[in-house]
Amino acid sequence: MTIAVIHAEKEQRARAHQDQLTKPRGALGRLEDIACWFAARQGKELPDPLQPHIAVFAGDHGVCDEGVSAYPSVVTGEMVKNFARGGAAINVLARQIGATLAVVDVGVMVDLSGIEGIEHNNVRRGTANLLHEAAMGEAECLAAIHTGRRIACEAIAKGANLLIAGDMGIGNTTASACLICRFSGATADAVVGFGTGVDSHGRQLKVDIVSRALARIGNCPDEAVLQQVGGLEIAAMAGFYLQAAEAGVPVVVDGFIAAAAALAARVMEPQVTGWMLASHVSRENGHHIALNALGLSPMIDFGMRLGEGSGAALIVPLLQSAIALHNEMATFASAGVTDKDE
Amino acid sequence: MTIAVIHAEKEQRARAHQDQLTKPRGALGRLEDIACWFAARQGKELPDPLQPHIAVFAGDHGVCDEGVSAYPSVVTGEMVKNFARGGAAINVLARQIGATLAVVDVGVMVDLSGIEGIEHNNVRRGTANLLHEAAMGEAECLAAIHTGRRIACEAIAKGANLLIAGDMGIGNTTASACLICRFSGATADAVVGFGTGVDSHGRQLKVDIVSRALARIGNCPDEAVLQQVGGLEIAAMAGFYLQAAEAGVPVVVDGFIAAAAALAARVMEPQVTGWMLASHVSRENGHHIALNALGLSPMIDFGMRLGEGSGAALIVPLLQSAIALHNEMATFASAGVTDKDE
Repeated sequence: MTIAVIHAEKEQRARAHQDQLTKPRGALGRLEDIACWFAARQGKELPDPLQPHIAVFAGDHGVCDEGVSAYPSVVTGEMVKNFARGGAAINVLARQIGATLAVVDVGVMVDLSGIEGIEHNNVRRGTANLLHEAAMGEAECLAAIHTGRRIACEAIAKGANLLIAGDMGIGNTTASACLICRFSGATADAVVGFGTGVDSHGRQLKVDIVSRALARIGNCPDEAVLQQVGGLEIAAMAGFYLQAAEAGVPVVVDGFIAAAAALAARVMEPQVTGWMLASHVSRENGHHIALNALGLSPMIDFGMRLGEGSGAALIVPLLQSAIALHNEMATFASAGVTDKDE
Repeated sequence: MTIAVIHAEKEQRARAHQDQLTKPRGALGRLEDIACWFAARQGKELPDPLQPHIAVFAGDHGVCDEGVSAYPSVVTGEMVKNFARGGAAINVLARQIGATLAVVDVGVMVDLSGIEGIEHNNVRRGTANLLHEAAMGEAECLAAIHTGRRIACEAIAKGANLLIAGDMGIGNTTASACLICRFSGATADAVVGFGTGVDSHGRQLKVDIVSRALARIGNCPDEAVLQQVGGLEIAAMAGFYLQAAEAGVPVVVDGFIAAAAALAARVMEPQVTGWMLASHVSRENGHHIALNALGLSPMIDFGMRLGEGSGAALIVPLLQSAIALHNEMATFASAGVTDKDE
């Protein structure tokens, strides 16, 4: 498959339409850019309102054996159950924005097979420890990517025209830091942050582990890095992004983990970033480094560091408003308002 | 009247509640602060969802005779008719956020008395030219302030618990720049921007006019500055903010004009800013200067410069989501999720 075509001429027509609306030209700032961005991706001068779908991918990380997280791995499965019951932040935000929500077990350590309200696609019960060995086998990595692709496909078939990938995985800021260092060229010290809440000693431990993991994988091909450091949920998110871009459906990229997954997807298909909007920049040190590497500019800086897709879901109403303004505002001519240039 | 009391103990209880929710402590960043801010103002550990009301105040400016705007004064009245018919940006945004909307003629130059869908409170047909004389008389200034107070009162009586003031007035960035210079101590050159779209020559003209107007009013008391520079719509917005704070109802401050009105309100009652949230920072040079002077921190930077209350309306869904997360998320105990501290 190849990445879908972006309709530059629709973007131009949308821009010309914006200039007819009853406001000084450019006065809606970034909202004008957003509306025109969707016009180009939907291939419609007046883009349709957004029907968002959120998929939260969950997986565990063998590197937790090194003490990289403030929480034990068991929390991953407990939070998946919380998602299934509707009690987590992403459930609340999905309701706020009218999004459908899928919760996907790609690689949780504990057995969730009896739990309802979850997509069961467990590839393996957590990754191996990235400090000492490849986080997963090649076939496992492909299976996780395929799961993300399938979830995106199904959501698009049901009418979603905006996709959000969220993550749940204790330890996944460590795997993400490895991906961001490798694909941005930044050092572990620049990229590693405080995750869910380790102290400065814990952060230094993470810096050391990320540095040693990067040394272990050495000059392995870019295509092999994801398999080497994981995680299963990050691989699924990368597949989800690739499928969306191939199907011509925009995605909103969430936080640090999502940016790492986006970088992994870009290794597989450089044009994938043309279908991405960045939502927020988090407190996690390397997030702005990853966004710069992706060429994306975040919309808000709220100091969030939760994951689950929460930052991406939060900003969807701003996108909806951008499109509504574009489609519903009167023109100078229709409203009988004197234009600057008359 | 005095400004309403802020319930510090409810804010503390809300903060403690946040720390029980199924997320790392602080992981929702500014959203946690917003929820606790509303808890303190509503006096409820779990704040009610927001019922926003937007009032757009319109008035003309005699200083337009100096050529300070890219648009002629007639556009103010034309845009008020556009508001009344539902075709402007603020109409679209009001629908997006489920807000009620009032359009108020406080001082439009043209006769709008036959137009439906407008609150008719015209104090005078535009201000006098602030370059040469007081923009309005003392009684006119008080009448405009009173109009803003009355509109706030009525909205609160009908159940609004979040108020937004918008502005429409060709030339009002010049009056606002005078207010912001005077109340922040910044120079005209630092504060004056490009308004609705003047060129650099036009901006220099505005800098000159603002400087000369400030020299004209000299050391007049702070309380007299609003009357000296106007405008009628800005006076109404100041009254609207004062009434909201006295009634204990939070406001979201929009852009450059709204910040100038907030500074004018603060002269009358220093505690009024305790009831204000800043929405966005605009492209207009002095907006961040005004927000700093108010002690407010904007939520987004989208390069908007429209007024009408548009930036404030845009961010209301972020506030709603902050409150919904606070009220609806499961706790560690209720969800059976292992906490970091256990």
